[in-house]
Amino acid sequence: MSLPNAPIERIIRKAGAERVSEEAVDQLRFALEDLGEEVAADAVNMASHAGRNTVKEEDVEIATQ
Amino acid sequence: MSLPNAPIERIIRKAGAERVSEEAVDQLRFALEDLGEEVAADAVNMASHAGRNTVKEEDVEIATQ
Repeated sequence: MSLPNAPIERIIRKAGAERVSEEAVDQLRFALEDLGEEVAADAVNMASHAGRNTVKEEDVEIATQ
Repeated sequence: MSLPNAPIERIIRKAGAERVSEEAVDQLRFALEDLGEEVAADAVNMASHAGRNTVKEEDVEIATQ
């Protein structure tokens, strides 16, 4: 699984970067993927805890708190 | 700025979700975009603090700590 680099580079440029190294983009991508996997795992547990097979917005909300 | 939904839905499915609501995908996307913007802003400041115009891997590393 991986997020695409282009929008992540855009986030860094929009934050005010004149130039961005490729490794910097990778580094932010890894961080976001890691967080995404952690939140997703918690959200799946929340859905299961609520007796659902469908992960809903409220599960992700709780998982990000 | 926005991350694409497809890879984010894949993250949630890979975490074990049988089904995922569209709003759940949006919710995780928003959370990752918010974090990305925060980290990017910190990384730009770190690069500036180091006297560089280029955001490097080490700037993002510090910004994610």
